Amino acid sequence: MARPTALSGFPEWLPGQRIAEQLVLDTLRRTFELHGFSPVETRAVEPLDQLLRKGETSKEVYVLRRLQADAEGGDAGLGLHFDLTVPFARYVQEFAGRLVFPFRRYQIQRAWRGERPQEGRFREFTQADIDVVGTGELPFAYDVELPLVVLAALAALPIPLVLMQVNNRKLVQGFCAAIGVADYPAALRAVDKLDRVGPTGVRAELTGVAGCTPDQAAALLGLAAVSGDAAEVRAAVAATGARDPLLDEGLAELVAVLEAAQAAAPGRVVADLSITRGLDYYTGTVYETRLVGHESLGSVCSGGRYDNLVSAGTVTYPGVGLSIGVSRLLSRLFGRGLLAATRPTPTCVLVAVPDEDSRPAAAAVAAALRARGVPTEVSAAAARFGRQIRSADRAGIPFVWFPAANADTGSDQVKDIRSGDQLDADPDSWQPPAGDLHPRLVATTPG
Amino acid sequence: MARPTALSGFPEWLPGQRIAEQLVLDTLRRTFELHGFSPVETRAVEPLDQLLRKGETSKEVYVLRRLQADAEGGDAGLGLHFDLTVPFARYVQEFAGRLVFPFRRYQIQRAWRGERPQEGRFREFTQADIDVVGTGELPFAYDVELPLVVLAALAALPIPLVLMQVNNRKLVQGFCAAIGVADYPAALRAVDKLDRVGPTGVRAELTGVAGCTPDQAAALLGLAAVSGDAAEVRAAVAATGARDPLLDEGLAELVAVLEAAQAAAPGRVVADLSITRGLDYYTGTVYETRLVGHESLGSVCSGGRYDNLVSAGTVTYPGVGLSIGVSRLLSRLFGRGLLAATRPTPTCVLVAVPDEDSRPAAAAVAAALRARGVPTEVSAAAARFGRQIRSADRAGIPFVWFPAANADTGSDQVKDIRSGDQLDADPDSWQPPAGDLHPRLVATTPG
Repeated sequence: MARPTALSGFPEWLPGQRIAEQLVLDTLRRTFELHGFSPVETRAVEPLDQLLRKGETSKEVYVLRRLQADAEGGDAGLGLHFDLTVPFARYVQEFAGRLVFPFRRYQIQRAWRGERPQEGRFREFTQADIDVVGTGELPFAYDVELPLVVLAALAALPIPLVLMQVNNRKLVQGFCAAIGVADYPAALRAVDKLDRVGPTGVRAELTGVAGCTPDQAAALLGLAAVSGDAAEVRAAVAATGARDPLLDEGLAELVAVLEAAQAAAPGRVVADLSITRGLDYYTGTVYETRLVGHESLGSVCSGGRYDNLVSAGTVTYPGVGLSIGVSRLLSRLFGRGLLAATRPTPTCVLVAVPDEDSRPAAAAVAAALRARGVPTEVSAAAARFGRQIRSADRAGIPFVWFPAANADTGSDQVKDIRSGDQLDADPDSWQPPAGDLHPRLVATTPG
Repeated sequence: MARPTALSGFPEWLPGQRIAEQLVLDTLRRTFELHGFSPVETRAVEPLDQLLRKGETSKEVYVLRRLQADAEGGDAGLGLHFDLTVPFARYVQEFAGRLVFPFRRYQIQRAWRGERPQEGRFREFTQADIDVVGTGELPFAYDVELPLVVLAALAALPIPLVLMQVNNRKLVQGFCAAIGVADYPAALRAVDKLDRVGPTGVRAELTGVAGCTPDQAAALLGLAAVSGDAAEVRAAVAATGARDPLLDEGLAELVAVLEAAQAAAPGRVVADLSITRGLDYYTGTVYETRLVGHESLGSVCSGGRYDNLVSAGTVTYPGVGLSIGVSRLLSRLFGRGLLAATRPTPTCVLVAVPDEDSRPAAAAVAAALRARGVPTEVSAAAARFGRQIRSADRAGIPFVWFPAANADTGSDQVKDIRSGDQLDADPDSWQPPAGDLHPRLVATTPG
């Protein structure tokens, strides 16, 4: 049959890239667990009414249909989740009786959106989320803590610097109230598009869909142009002359996040009042994150505070969380040759097999090396040593082992095929240099 | 809104169970990498024609449809994969030019089948596969190596013993030829159902669908009753009187697998000539695996040799592989209370906060502990210490830390809330006992 071709929007990695991705995910997981986040995975599907509750049809949900549908039912109205927040909110509600609140969880999983594929925007993608959810109320302290956790996780990776932009929807909502804009959700959605459609596009949407006067639109665009540190934001907001209790509350929260971040991760977090997040479920702090030098990629880590995403009867579950767009980040870094694993295979040692009769001896060497944690494979086919060395080289395996019976010297020998160094070695004690035991993640130079 | 309910066939774990699942997957991954298997993940979807190529409609494929379908197309005819072998075969073919053969890969991922849910059979489930694929030919040595790798992986888990049953389809096919059964694929499919429908059911299918005479059916049922070690199988097959070159080849391969396994993992691998695997793509060795004491669950790890699953032009990619049914295994072990993590949270230490003014001091302690790899969280709310200790207890966190300024003694103290022991401690040097640093996987007694 014809060679299959890639499906647009459904990226797949080569083994070396997958090793790099795993090392990235291991680092995120380690950082999240170090901060006491518990792992959760949810099923890939949710009932459609759950997926569409917040008017999320724009997310282009994929609906499932059984090829052999029958009378059993049970699958009608299921769709693939388009993010990890909506399923997590449902999980919290479903298992509330068996969770301890505030509940800190991380979730690293795929999601699906039938959008038009473009760079950094896929139909199937991996996200790494952290959220804290409370019952009834959730201290504001988490709005400060969570961005620092994801910044620590990203800082542990050999990738370009990231810069987080923070805003607070209460501030913008209060500003809308102060200047008399009634449909603030529409106004926030319009402002959110600033970096995609520019001021002219936002102005058109503000005066159109959002029903603003030209003066109101100008005031909102002025606010959206504000950025900087705590002092700069405070001054710029005061200069607008707008006064509103909700505006004050949002400003105070924003300043608190900025000041704490400045102490813990200097220079990594700035205010940007154009950030409002399109999703209506955010109610306070909102976050976006740019990879410095790759701003055109869009946000690689976004999130915010949501006070009303889930409620059951009289109980509400307010939360705050951020989501790292792992596929978006890695597709850029792999595509530009900026990130790689030190080798494309876990194997550290290939044990050479000069003839099939020697295979048991080679297997014994491999077992001894593995018993001490050295990833090892035995050569697939007996062949001249030169050919087996070339085969290891092609596979990216750094060491080739020659069992004693077949070495010139009467002792086992191991060759570092990068340097050509070949030395006597004992399978019960030899260790590779620490940096060669497993593949590591390294920043690379595009070549 | 009403509390959401579980979807039948789409299992979800509580955080403590997810921690246990992760530890299981970490162990499998470590064992696979130690044996030189490279990680691969494939997209969740395949073109329907790819999914249905081998007559696999019985797998109940889930087809995708975009809620907002438009003229762009591109998603028409996509379905969720129902195993990891078919997508891997496609991946090998698509990326053949950039892989090194024989290609050893492991793949731990979810798959979907719209089957009727029952114990151990889900609509969404996780599998952990290893395969080796060659170009043109693949040495038989891998038929011997791969079952030993999965047995090593399973033996590294604190779970009941596993017992692997092995057979060879060439042996059964050759036997069919020897006794004059023409439609051997139908005969193999019938025999495969022995443990589900019993000899009477198999006899009916053999004489019905498979077109066997009563004598042929009896002979096949006699063969299917053969089990044991290499010597026993050799004797039992000789006693049938059937002679055929393919039968001899299959028997020789089966004996080779049994003898190698007996040397490497004594007592863990036996022949069972009723094992034929329903999937037509297997061409030689086939494997199934039972959890001792839980045989009713069915096979928890299955696979086999496939010589013709993929071909592109004149190139074929023969392979051999096994797939561990992680969800099936864990649902039984969790359901029976036989496997757990030592705690349901990654957090080792909760730093107590007596009042909000002390939060920065508590955060500094947490940072010091995390810097040395101790998973730590800071108490959500200032409260009486007794209440914070109870909160740690409920969450399963073993240690509570009292910063100096608030302790009675003037020094920081840490309390093991299981024993009640409370000692002076320095956040820059204290370490928990090694077994308490991270959750561990333990066999448990049903209670």
